[in-house]
Amino acid sequence: MFSAAPFVAELGVEPESISEGRCESRLQLAERHLQHDGFVHAGVIATMADHSAGAAATTLLAEGQIVLTAEFKISLLRAARGDALRCVAVVIKAGSRITFAEAEVHCETGSTARLVAKASVSLAVIPDPGLAAGSRGGTG
Amino acid sequence: MFSAAPFVAELGVEPESISEGRCESRLQLAERHLQHDGFVHAGVIATMADHSAGAAATTLLAEGQIVLTAEFKISLLRAARGDALRCVAVVIKAGSRITFAEAEVHCETGSTARLVAKASVSLAVIPDPGLAAGSRGGTG
Amino acid sequence: MFSAAPFVAELGVEPESISEGRCESRLQLAERHLQHDGFVHAGVIATMADHSAGAAATTLLAEGQIVLTAEFKISLLRAARGDALRCVAVVIKAGSRITFAEAEVHCETGSTARLVAKASVSLAVIPDPGLAAGSRGGTG
Amino acid sequence: MFSAAPFVAELGVEPESISEGRCESRLQLAERHLQHDGFVHAGVIATMADHSAGAAATTLLAEGQIVLTAEFKISLLRAARGDALRCVAVVIKAGSRITFAEAEVHCETGSTARLVAKASVSLAVIPDPGLAAGSRGGTG
Repeated sequence: MFSAAPFVAELGVEPESISEGRCESRLQLAERHLQHDGFVHAGVIATMADHSAGAAATTLLAEGQIVLTAEFKISLLRAARGDALRCVAVVIKAGSRITFAEAEVHCETGSTARLVAKASVSLAVIPDPGLAAGSRGGTG
Repeated sequence: MFSAAPFVAELGVEPESISEGRCESRLQLAERHLQHDGFVHAGVIATMADHSAGAAATTLLAEGQIVLTAEFKISLLRAARGDALRCVAVVIKAGSRITFAEAEVHCETGSTARLVAKASVSLAVIPDPGLAAGSRGGTG
Repeated sequence: MFSAAPFVAELGVEPESISEGRCESRLQLAERHLQHDGFVHAGVIATMADHSAGAAATTLLAEGQIVLTAEFKISLLRAARGDALRCVAVVIKAGSRITFAEAEVHCETGSTARLVAKASVSLAVIPDPGLAAGSRGGTG
Repeated sequence: MFSAAPFVAELGVEPESISEGRCESRLQLAERHLQHDGFVHAGVIATMADHSAGAAATTLLAEGQIVLTAEFKISLLRAARGDALRCVAVVIKAGSRITFAEAEVHCETGSTARLVAKASVSLAVIPDPGLAAGSRGGTG
């Protein structure tokens, strides 16, 4: 799910471990991830949080189902500058229609890690459109 | 503010028009913006919405102030597939401590445009740390 | 839907007009709606926004469906003090699984009205459990 | 902070324990807290989460400061029906301008408790307007 998504692959987010209802990922930071002020762009952090939450939710699906992010909120607790980002996403309620997940993003500098963001994600559980003849309508 | 931010410049988001409390931007879609299913990654849409909201908020600042996104929520109304994304961000309340903005993202296919996402953004208004000798503490 | 909900009836929120995808409501303010500082409690404003969004979403349902709020975010733009609150809720995307709505709350003082809050609401569209023999699992 | 707020006092939310950066509260459920379908109204849960988050944030303020909720998001994980609600709110980042908190709400039925909602709250830290001659502008 990480390598197959062009945007996430290009960004450089890599899965570290995936288990039932949980996904950890890592991103080695580079110049291209930054905001004009030298801090990591909120969009990078949000992408990592959303994608990891989706991966965590996917572990709990029945066959023939996929998840689509319906909405997420992300709180940017501290400006992030460092060597790498590490994200832990966990499902807090898996449902047949909506799965709720959370993701925490830490920024690592040397041996120090600080919580820089926290996201709350709602994912729509839908039949895999690749298995159906029908069209697809987002989270609708 | 768009060309100076490496992440946004690499993504390809370009400002279209900026006026008081408002910013319009555009992104020509390419393979690298996609999710594994061929739809635009939520992270791309979120980055565009957040960045445009920040640009809109910046137009209303006093000298020596900057904004940092404190949090945002984005609702992904429809899966996005098309030629380009267009974002309109507007400030709904400018404050001395917190500015509130919204951003709508439309996806264009040929001459058709559909609303695909809507974001609600809170931005902390802070003294420009580049003007001060002190350190910087995110939105703190 | 307003008079049948004990919490909303006791609060005093009244529907003003309901049309397709839209609901307007009003609340005459009293001492009991206030925070310790004399301003309207955020919980009052949130209740009004959420309930009105639910009413707006309900107008677009098929027979045998109901909506349940899956999540909402509310931005409190200004402290609210005045005679009455007025809320306008509109559906921005009706779906077969999730309906997205927004609600604006204005505070009226004499002939003046100011926007005090804006909410973004995701509602799960589910079969009416009152019509089924089965149990009910929230938004799941 | 609970007994002095008319809306919260009337609702019946009571503080259970308050310590540094943390607040626990409880609400004995009654008919008046319900939605038309017999489940607890989302507005009740949201009020409890927001108010408890504010109380948790208040424990970490410097003298002469107060907090005002700038925004919150609440995810309603399960429909709530039972004897009482219990809320635990914790500060996840205290700042000089914005404090971020979270609140979990459990619904108790007999000896069972289930997580029914989770909120993420941003609070503006502002000078206590009661100490100043000036006017007050919400979170601005």
